[in-house]
Amino acid sequence: MAGLTSLFRPRSVAVIGASRTPGKIGNAIVRNLIECGYQGKIYPVNPKESEIEGLVCYPQVTAVPAEVEMAVLAVPAAKVLEAAGECGKKGVRALTVITAGFKEVGKEGLDLEKKLLETCNKYGMLLLGPNCVGLIDTHTPINATFAATFPYKGDIAFFSQSGAILLAILDWSSSTGLGFSKVVSLGNKASLSEIDFIEDAADDPYTRVILCYIEDIVDGPRFLEVARRAAKKKPIIVLKSGVSQAGALAASSHTGALAGSDLAYDTAFQQCGVIRVRSMTELFDLAVAFSKSAIPAGDRVAIVTNSGGPGIIATDNIELKGLRMARFDKSTIEELRASLPPEAGIYNPVDVLGDASAGRYEFALQKVLADPNVDSVLVLVCPTAVTRPAEISRVIIKARDTHPGKPVFAAYTGGRLLSEGAGLLAEAGVPCFTFPETAIECIKGLYNYNQYRSIPAVEEKHSLPEADRKTVKAVFYDVTRDRRLTLLGSEAAEVAIAYGIPAAPAVLTTTPEEAVAVAEKMGYPVVLKVASPRILHKTDVGGVKTGISSPAGVKQAFIEIMESVHRYLPKVVIHGVEVQKMMPKGTELIIGMTRDVQFGPLIAFGLGGVYVNLLKDVTFRLAGGLTDEKAIEQMLAETKAYTLLKGYRGETPKDIAAVVDVIRRVAQLVTDFPEITEMDINPVFAYEKGISALDIKITIS
Amino acid sequence: MAGLTSLFRPRSVAVIGASRTPGKIGNAIVRNLIECGYQGKIYPVNPKESEIEGLVCYPQVTAVPAEVEMAVLAVPAAKVLEAAGECGKKGVRALTVITAGFKEVGKEGLDLEKKLLETCNKYGMLLLGPNCVGLIDTHTPINATFAATFPYKGDIAFFSQSGAILLAILDWSSSTGLGFSKVVSLGNKASLSEIDFIEDAADDPYTRVILCYIEDIVDGPRFLEVARRAAKKKPIIVLKSGVSQAGALAASSHTGALAGSDLAYDTAFQQCGVIRVRSMTELFDLAVAFSKSAIPAGDRVAIVTNSGGPGIIATDNIELKGLRMARFDKSTIEELRASLPPEAGIYNPVDVLGDASAGRYEFALQKVLADPNVDSVLVLVCPTAVTRPAEISRVIIKARDTHPGKPVFAAYTGGRLLSEGAGLLAEAGVPCFTFPETAIECIKGLYNYNQYRSIPAVEEKHSLPEADRKTVKAVFYDVTRDRRLTLLGSEAAEVAIAYGIPAAPAVLTTTPEEAVAVAEKMGYPVVLKVASPRILHKTDVGGVKTGISSPAGVKQAFIEIMESVHRYLPKVVIHGVEVQKMMPKGTELIIGMTRDVQFGPLIAFGLGGVYVNLLKDVTFRLAGGLTDEKAIEQMLAETKAYTLLKGYRGETPKDIAAVVDVIRRVAQLVTDFPEITEMDINPVFAYEKGISALDIKITIS
Repeated sequence: MAGLTSLFRPRSVAVIGASRTPGKIGNAIVRNLIECGYQGKIYPVNPKESEIEGLVCYPQVTAVPAEVEMAVLAVPAAKVLEAAGECGKKGVRALTVITAGFKEVGKEGLDLEKKLLETCNKYGMLLLGPNCVGLIDTHTPINATFAATFPYKGDIAFFSQSGAILLAILDWSSSTGLGFSKVVSLGNKASLSEIDFIEDAADDPYTRVILCYIEDIVDGPRFLEVARRAAKKKPIIVLKSGVSQAGALAASSHTGALAGSDLAYDTAFQQCGVIRVRSMTELFDLAVAFSKSAIPAGDRVAIVTNSGGPGIIATDNIELKGLRMARFDKSTIEELRASLPPEAGIYNPVDVLGDASAGRYEFALQKVLADPNVDSVLVLVCPTAVTRPAEISRVIIKARDTHPGKPVFAAYTGGRLLSEGAGLLAEAGVPCFTFPETAIECIKGLYNYNQYRSIPAVEEKHSLPEADRKTVKAVFYDVTRDRRLTLLGSEAAEVAIAYGIPAAPAVLTTTPEEAVAVAEKMGYPVVLKVASPRILHKTDVGGVKTGISSPAGVKQAFIEIMESVHRYLPKVVIHGVEVQKMMPKGTELIIGMTRDVQFGPLIAFGLGGVYVNLLKDVTFRLAGGLTDEKAIEQMLAETKAYTLLKGYRGETPKDIAAVVDVIRRVAQLVTDFPEITEMDINPVFAYEKGISALDIKITIS
Repeated sequence: MAGLTSLFRPRSVAVIGASRTPGKIGNAIVRNLIECGYQGKIYPVNPKESEIEGLVCYPQVTAVPAEVEMAVLAVPAAKVLEAAGECGKKGVRALTVITAGFKEVGKEGLDLEKKLLETCNKYGMLLLGPNCVGLIDTHTPINATFAATFPYKGDIAFFSQSGAILLAILDWSSSTGLGFSKVVSLGNKASLSEIDFIEDAADDPYTRVILCYIEDIVDGPRFLEVARRAAKKKPIIVLKSGVSQAGALAASSHTGALAGSDLAYDTAFQQCGVIRVRSMTELFDLAVAFSKSAIPAGDRVAIVTNSGGPGIIATDNIELKGLRMARFDKSTIEELRASLPPEAGIYNPVDVLGDASAGRYEFALQKVLADPNVDSVLVLVCPTAVTRPAEISRVIIKARDTHPGKPVFAAYTGGRLLSEGAGLLAEAGVPCFTFPETAIECIKGLYNYNQYRSIPAVEEKHSLPEADRKTVKAVFYDVTRDRRLTLLGSEAAEVAIAYGIPAAPAVLTTTPEEAVAVAEKMGYPVVLKVASPRILHKTDVGGVKTGISSPAGVKQAFIEIMESVHRYLPKVVIHGVEVQKMMPKGTELIIGMTRDVQFGPLIAFGLGGVYVNLLKDVTFRLAGGLTDEKAIEQMLAETKAYTLLKGYRGETPKDIAAVVDVIRRVAQLVTDFPEITEMDINPVFAYEKGISALDIKITIS
């Protein structure tokens, strides 16, 4: 793609469907273009008018006697295709289609939208929308929307899938002073989506923070790739709505059930460094923080306050949010002690007392900012009789300027008495809130981003040259021919072994005698399991017998299993009984995979066994992010299972490297074979040396 | 206590330490009393002045020629005792001591504070403070503070242990319009504390919501008792700060380690219906909600919106907060379908579309409010070209008034375009926020309060007449005489059995031969455990041997245990080896107790076994709240252990009644014997019938 210059900085804009009537969208767009100070040419197009808002109006875009770089379409849906075709002929480079009545109204609209896209592709035109509010670039400046408000110039780029939210935020920003670089209404995302705009904004010199409101992502892999690169350059904060519980109900595997439907988004955002927020409040609080503040190098916060209570509340919230209270250098403490009044708090929080002058605030602030053990500072001001908020604001601004690398946040708890001081901070770009908690939440967001940004990018992918893809293909062919979707345990073990996953050997038998023969060859003890892909929880129907160590035992177990399963599930198809080598018990783990429509395979790891769904000690990663050992071990480290593996309460540590290796192999397997829709290995036994994959379930499509 | 009338509605007030100098505290108090419109008599007292702010000034309080009901002391700390004594002689009924320099400055100040309290007690005077900002009652009206702001009249009572926070909130309220009934600065709480003020406010007809900022609670049991009764009448919202992690480190028992230091407050607040918030934002958002809104009867929320995006965000947040989206009655849906445009959303959220008139909002609002499946309604408004916010506000107010029992909240997302409409809602007392999430958080708070209020109060206490208190006393006497704090396992079992807790029999032995004799008598299999109160985790040092079923095995195990423990811990004192009857394995539980300084015994229940600290599936209750079976079963139901007890994945259900009974007995035991500081039973085995208490640890003081 050649870039979005024709949208954000076109030399000329035609408004097709321009109108003379105030209040009409076609009028508002022309007026907005004029009023925002747009420096290029504006060409209203409307066959019924000759002049609109003082500009010459043309009957159609092809009649414009000069180049038209961008066209804004505000004609009825029925006329959009024709207008788009004319734009194509005219050599227009980009369309912004405001008109509604496309995909959002059903099948007919969807067809229309497809034709619109075809026309755009035919002529190589960019397409924003349809069904959108338009776009704004405050630095060009251009306002190709019908919004009633043009925002302040700033460094926040905001891309919204909801036009209403975009309009609401523009209006809201008029009373809060928030400034934007670009504001784009994504509409139906027929062609351009948040992905294109994120990619563009990452390199836009006027944009410092990228905000998105989205309801879906159209191309998961591309989003991941683009966002991963962009997030290394600039913070991307996303409010993704449409979290529904419905999806989770349909899952048939443990892994699927544990994942739920929204987890893929969570995992994907986390892995590509996108900061996900859950509310509009958070979205814009963080936007302010990132737009105004430096990024802290660490999580150690210092507090300077003129009163005890707010200092304690802030301390609590710092612990609550997982940040740390800075411990000052000895020299800092001594300097504070030497110069502050004896009743002052000289540890963290630094309490400069209710009668603190601006000078005392300044002294304390400069000292803690200079301390190498402090990563960010929060200044708390309460109005006492002698507080001079404006003066305090000036010393805060000065302190921030002398330590540009460390974030300085303020919480001015009060109203009238503090408003002048708070205003000064806002003007100077020091984030200032009413209550300390909001400031702390922002510092936490900044710190998290720092954490992501400092992880070195790993691009190379390991592959498994020794993986035996042919065997896997052969097994899947058999299963498909058998009109099944679920592999038998013996088949799943074969697939696993082909990828170097140490599965316990398993053989399908159909008679007690055959089972005995297999067991004799395999060596005792053995486990017998009913072979039926329809039975999800074999133990629950008496379909599993363990610890069998004699031919007679095998025979007996075979018969009992068949009887019990027939009793519980009289109609179920049984393929036979699998004989599996019984492995010594190790630490019980689960390793699994569920496939997300958008983002592909999600790998699960956690505590295994029958209580896996009760204990819910499971963590997830997209398979694409699990290519190196370090990333996999970081994944393990999020679970309690990891604590067990490392050797809990005197137990010997287990073979973590072997667990990591198996996860890597599972990730490779499910990446190589997109037809695997779900996979569970539960339990995996981890030993002091090596591991054993016991019960493997694989479902294909 | 005769009530706080002399503080809140005194007929006369003396200001001792009154001053002519503007800016001095002694001057500000006199001016505040005059300016707030206080109707009683004001007597400035200062030996150096004859007139202050137009009022006659007296040399001392005893010189006032009339009754003085309340005195505000603003003299230096050194003169407080004398002034208080004079007040006592004069017959003053209540003192508000503004003066600082008491407990907060150390030992000397603490002594002075004690003497001040003695003086007050001697004369029967109420004492607020010292070291406080004073108090306000907007309905009297009286302003006995030196604050620069007198708040709006309202129905929120606010009691603050931090003077700075109180001053900050008064100032803040001046710009937000929040109204208060009473505002009290608690200061050092030498006598009157939040408990007294909560008790008073519960019956105050002008107070609807009680807010507290506190850093500690001086009398846990009384707080519980008072708050429990008050919370049934009015919501009590508490911001309790000073959450520190330090306490948890010192605990020696599992239960103690799991509890941490802040858990007692959490548990206590929950049990007495106090709503605990974690930030000042939450404190005041909820205050607004409770002050203005009805309490919803259930958790089913309906949304009426003029745009899709905010509707989805609100839906997400409703699920996230644990509320439910209302499912409308069939008739509601049909009426909405019949009268709204075809593109409108007629399920929940009801999307009245971007071009919605106030009339369309009104129709939808009235329909959903009338639906019996709706407990509260959230109205979302975004500014579109045709939105008339002021008209919409009027229909919202009307709808609220026609359905006074159901909360109606609004989120007006925007700025300038919506400000008039938002202002109308604020005036009419409809809670209106900028973003939907805040409104939803408030609805959640209201719903939680409804849940608490609707639980019938259980006052009667069960007792255990059959409990053998004498045996317990005898054991404790022995332990104390032995200069130990921790009971041996055999002693702990004896204590448990005395209270009807089914402990597995255990006998202390000192030689292998003795152990064999005991085991023979007890019956095999048996367990041998090292008996040493110093060893916390016996398994980790080879101090436990299980499943022993022969005399030779007992002998061998005895020797091995002694050798192993001596190797690991050469210097530890060993009392011998306990022989315990080996019980069949059941569902492993932990039942424990840790004693909180403020609130007494905290009972723990959860998954037991060696992984108890890893799995952290434990819940807590104050022993005082566990007197009836229902309350105990509700406690169990918060854990994963409960899911196991009920029969997980085809396992047979366990004897929940027996578990409940043991918890009741443990609660009774630790209540009867305050000298028990910690107690762990881990594991408790639960069977289909009955339970078995295996390893019991008791620490006394």
